[in-house]
Amino acid sequence: MPNPTAAMLVIGDEILSGRTRDANMHFLAGELTKSGIDLQEVRIVSDRHDAIVEAVRALSAAYDTVVTSGGIGPTHDDITADAIADAFGAPIDVREDARALLAKHYETTGRELNAARLRMARIPDGATLIENPVSIAPGFTLGNVHVMAGVPSVFQAMVASVLPTLTGGEPLLSQTLRVARGEGDIAGPLAEIAAAHPDVSIGSYPFQQDGAFGANIVVRGMIGAKVDAAISDLALLFAE
Amino acid sequence: MPNPTAAMLVIGDEILSGRTRDANMHFLAGELTKSGIDLQEVRIVSDRHDAIVEAVRALSAAYDTVVTSGGIGPTHDDITADAIADAFGAPIDVREDARALLAKHYETTGRELNAARLRMARIPDGATLIENPVSIAPGFTLGNVHVMAGVPSVFQAMVASVLPTLTGGEPLLSQTLRVARGEGDIAGPLAEIAAAHPDVSIGSYPFQQDGAFGANIVVRGMIGAKVDAAISDLALLFAE
Repeated sequence: MPNPTAAMLVIGDEILSGRTRDANMHFLAGELTKSGIDLQEVRIVSDRHDAIVEAVRALSAAYDTVVTSGGIGPTHDDITADAIADAFGAPIDVREDARALLAKHYETTGRELNAARLRMARIPDGATLIENPVSIAPGFTLGNVHVMAGVPSVFQAMVASVLPTLTGGEPLLSQTLRVARGEGDIAGPLAEIAAAHPDVSIGSYPFQQDGAFGANIVVRGMIGAKVDAAISDLALLFAE
Repeated sequence: MPNPTAAMLVIGDEILSGRTRDANMHFLAGELTKSGIDLQEVRIVSDRHDAIVEAVRALSAAYDTVVTSGGIGPTHDDITADAIADAFGAPIDVREDARALLAKHYETTGRELNAARLRMARIPDGATLIENPVSIAPGFTLGNVHVMAGVPSVFQAMVASVLPTLTGGEPLLSQTLRVARGEGDIAGPLAEIAAAHPDVSIGSYPFQQDGAFGANIVVRGMIGAKVDAAISDLALLFAE
């Protein structure tokens, strides 16, 4: 049986403008791979309502699980929750369970639950809250879409809350062989080895270092013995 | 007149598996912003023919310019050129101009132009070559899609080749104010300032440092005086 599939939607002008470099995608990719969930697509869109709605609908229909990152804070440019609700045709308003979490937290910390902070209790009807042990304001799950914050520490905590609830697959095993020869020299024999080992996938990732080209050959598969067999053949062929 | 729009398509299993962290997106985002071209969407898909074809068609139709990264090397898993040709319904084969570039390069460097390397001369009919001063094997432009290598040094050189050919816009100006207060405290007045300055966009990007929350407030706009005016109002309001 193939592994469950996933997609990620990153919402953020600041990444598309080059101001900041996304960190959440790389983190999520690693966590999903460890859980045997196959991250097949990532989209990054700007803070525009229609762009978010369209991307959420497309990804939700195409993959088993979708994780979003960004745009659920208290400021005027945080529009993700409303866009997700719209994508599912769900009503959205301040919800009592989320409001109670925030009220308790701000009472404890001596801050005011003002109108802006109350925006973070806007949760679509039918959604389940995602726990946020870092800053309390919850994410939420609606259908197969898990809506999380963009601040990396909060995003990572929310991923930790949600991952145990997802159906995982067989963890993908991988081994890497670093070859100090250009891809053009190894591509022919590499294709033959790939054809001889149909139960693994073999990828070649070129790099350049000190002016010389090389490649990392990565063998991925579900069955350790088959990954081992392919990497052994590769090592024999490309041993330096 | 609104600025020209762009999208990027990153092709690479290795990024979706968390093995490597993409560097090209952040680089391209910065270069396009400097040129006044509005990067509105990025997609990352795996090395599957259908996924690439579908994404290229969608992005090519929706944006003025599309840049792809990855999958144009000599190995069996480099399938981007064929997928791009398929997306446009263009025939593809080894093309003489690209073959000649490679033949000369490998003759000079004393290497063989073998069958694998010759794959890098597969160029769709109607495409224009993109110069690659780093490792010679060219990228290509077909319609509004610029197909570039994934190795960062080569990608950057190809971006430098293509950027002067694109119609740029007014460079987007931006200024940032760092505020050491949680977004919940500043969101109300921030929304009022955003409403009072309709010719700029104001984004709030929260961070967490040493356990305290803060936010970078970024004002973006085409007209320097209007960006200045908004940032002055913000500085007055949130001065510490």
